[in-house]
Amino acid sequence: MDQLTLMQRLSIPGTTKMVLFVMDGVGGLPGPDGKTELEAAHTPNLDALAARGTTGLSTPARPGVTPGSGPGHVGLFGYDPLDWQIGRGVLEALGIDFDLGPDDLAARGNFATLDADGNILDRRAGRIPSEEGVRLVEKLRKIKLPGVEVFVEPVKEYRFVLVLRGKGLEDGLTETDPQKTGVPPMPVKATRPEAERAAELLNQWIAEARRLLADEPRANGLNLRGIAKVPPIPKMPDIYKMRLGAIATYPMYRGIARLVGMEVLPTGETIESEVETLKAHWDAYDFFFFHVKKTDSYGEDGNFDGKVHVIEEADAALAKVLALEPDVIVVTGDHSTPWALKAHSWHEVPVLLWSRYVRPDGVTAFGERPCMAGGLGHIRHFDLVPLMMAHAGRLTKYGA
Amino acid sequence: MDQLTLMQRLSIPGTTKMVLFVMDGVGGLPGPDGKTELEAAHTPNLDALAARGTTGLSTPARPGVTPGSGPGHVGLFGYDPLDWQIGRGVLEALGIDFDLGPDDLAARGNFATLDADGNILDRRAGRIPSEEGVRLVEKLRKIKLPGVEVFVEPVKEYRFVLVLRGKGLEDGLTETDPQKTGVPPMPVKATRPEAERAAELLNQWIAEARRLLADEPRANGLNLRGIAKVPPIPKMPDIYKMRLGAIATYPMYRGIARLVGMEVLPTGETIESEVETLKAHWDAYDFFFFHVKKTDSYGEDGNFDGKVHVIEEADAALAKVLALEPDVIVVTGDHSTPWALKAHSWHEVPVLLWSRYVRPDGVTAFGERPCMAGGLGHIRHFDLVPLMMAHAGRLTKYGA
Repeated sequence: MDQLTLMQRLSIPGTTKMVLFVMDGVGGLPGPDGKTELEAAHTPNLDALAARGTTGLSTPARPGVTPGSGPGHVGLFGYDPLDWQIGRGVLEALGIDFDLGPDDLAARGNFATLDADGNILDRRAGRIPSEEGVRLVEKLRKIKLPGVEVFVEPVKEYRFVLVLRGKGLEDGLTETDPQKTGVPPMPVKATRPEAERAAELLNQWIAEARRLLADEPRANGLNLRGIAKVPPIPKMPDIYKMRLGAIATYPMYRGIARLVGMEVLPTGETIESEVETLKAHWDAYDFFFFHVKKTDSYGEDGNFDGKVHVIEEADAALAKVLALEPDVIVVTGDHSTPWALKAHSWHEVPVLLWSRYVRPDGVTAFGERPCMAGGLGHIRHFDLVPLMMAHAGRLTKYGA
Repeated sequence: MDQLTLMQRLSIPGTTKMVLFVMDGVGGLPGPDGKTELEAAHTPNLDALAARGTTGLSTPARPGVTPGSGPGHVGLFGYDPLDWQIGRGVLEALGIDFDLGPDDLAARGNFATLDADGNILDRRAGRIPSEEGVRLVEKLRKIKLPGVEVFVEPVKEYRFVLVLRGKGLEDGLTETDPQKTGVPPMPVKATRPEAERAAELLNQWIAEARRLLADEPRANGLNLRGIAKVPPIPKMPDIYKMRLGAIATYPMYRGIARLVGMEVLPTGETIESEVETLKAHWDAYDFFFFHVKKTDSYGEDGNFDGKVHVIEEADAALAKVLALEPDVIVVTGDHSTPWALKAHSWHEVPVLLWSRYVRPDGVTAFGERPCMAGGLGHIRHFDLVPLMMAHAGRLTKYGA
């Protein structure tokens, strides 16, 4: 029996409240004074919670594997990210609140600059401003394709989303982006027979788009990437018999949350506004996904101090979350983004679990090294939701 | 998606250098003064590396399972040894540099002494000297079989290799060795229908061999063991896009390394000569498998001090390996061979990983007990190569 089937079978409704508090990319590496970002941050609330709770280190996908944001969150939400792959186009569409259905094929589009021979000069069209992207998308909306609905939506700067909606559109399609300049975009190809029709339609759309964009000074071309359908992923409300609310300032995370059946709660740009959103909806949901983005952003920038500062801000927010008296809280990240690598990494992510039923483990600070001695040991992301459910009293006994 | 497929998808070429430094059977049990062989050894270089790196304990196959040398190394090389079984005959053939192909069926042969009734008197033919083994093999090379090529090669003392080469030879064959004296060798039997032809041919070969050996005073009989084909194991250079060099003083380890696609580098009999080989080939390979044999040999002998001494010798060699400035190094064993058991055992193996991207774990000595508190926790052998690849910057991100 796979994990989701087991959870679906054991889970029961309840009145307890759970919070999955995610600091994106929180895991790090030692800085100048030998402490990681998390260890260097002044985090009295996290440390106190660690002292009352149990800690460990969690692997998002597999040992050694660096996950993207998709697999990182899919893991946190209780799915094996190797079983459930979410295409880049799907993530991009979900991230702009596009309501993707089962007949939709989504692609991430990038405007590009082509030379007179059709070779790529700039894969990002000189990073045109978002307003220009909106204008170009308006142009592309004129394109019609036989037998399918076509949606084109601006994202940001040179990025847009293309969605074809219709029966019989299957994925298994190559990208057009050659990932380098000096060569032309490639045609979309089907990697399996069922996807042939979609490939034809996409290539037809691209040809018409090229015609419409021909006079543009910078964005006279485009690429399509990560062309995919929504995977038929079982929804968390059905598996766990609960209502889940997602609070995130960035589109992509809201998108992934929506994909697994969470309701996205409107919020502002700051952690403070996210806390207000949590308070406002506290009574209406069983489980909250609370996402802090900027730990990852500063990690990607290699900004040790910036990441430390966001962790401290999240620590202050945590106090307000705890004041709502959740029954279960997990604090962790979707993956590590060590300042020293300026990128996502494969390193395990510190994790902290508290409920009134944990066995405290003697760890009194939340950091990578303290967590090595934690009571949870080395676990996997997709074990966290089952543990939360158990601690919330929402899993019945397995077997007699 | 299985681990090898995932690794094949994520791995990229690079210029970093990795060393897998294996002390065969290094894991032990407490000796007279309460310390294990590894803990009792004076190992300043290992301890210093442990202080800079991260440590843990690794399970070769499954908890409680004592692996042979084959499964132990298959695990170290990143394969689940339960998925990839290598027959003894295959190991023996690879170990004498026999170039086994996909149509080859290999068996380990042991000369034996039989009494007048054909019952086994000595399963090792009085451990005849190697020269005598060579002479006997020459005799056996006269045997022809219909439709297949036959190779007989001496190994050492009473041991030889028999290889049948031909289309349609399948494995799934029982051994002839009853593992005791006073009874006759058993016939080869097919355990599945596809192997019937091979069983017939092998029994025909055995009958002719018995006739040719009838006058021999000691080696007037023989047994065939571990009759098997090469498993269709994916090769490491294809999975990981790198060149791998293997340095080992004993044939079997070179054979396993060759089986997974490593190039065997000529070396001498001592650890010192292995270090010279490593230096000589440093520029030509990405990944080195460096094998120290005698830790295991002394463990098998129950010789605590002997094993301690080899560990100290390996520690001195390690300093020279580190002087080459590898980007990633793992020090571990294929399995434990505790002096107290005089045999391979199921105990976890201490493991030490260093790269500039490890999170140091506070462990400052390389030993079984210190490793229990290590930052790697309890891992599996087949997770080590993925971790090495990640630390070497040779795995791309999984998913967007």
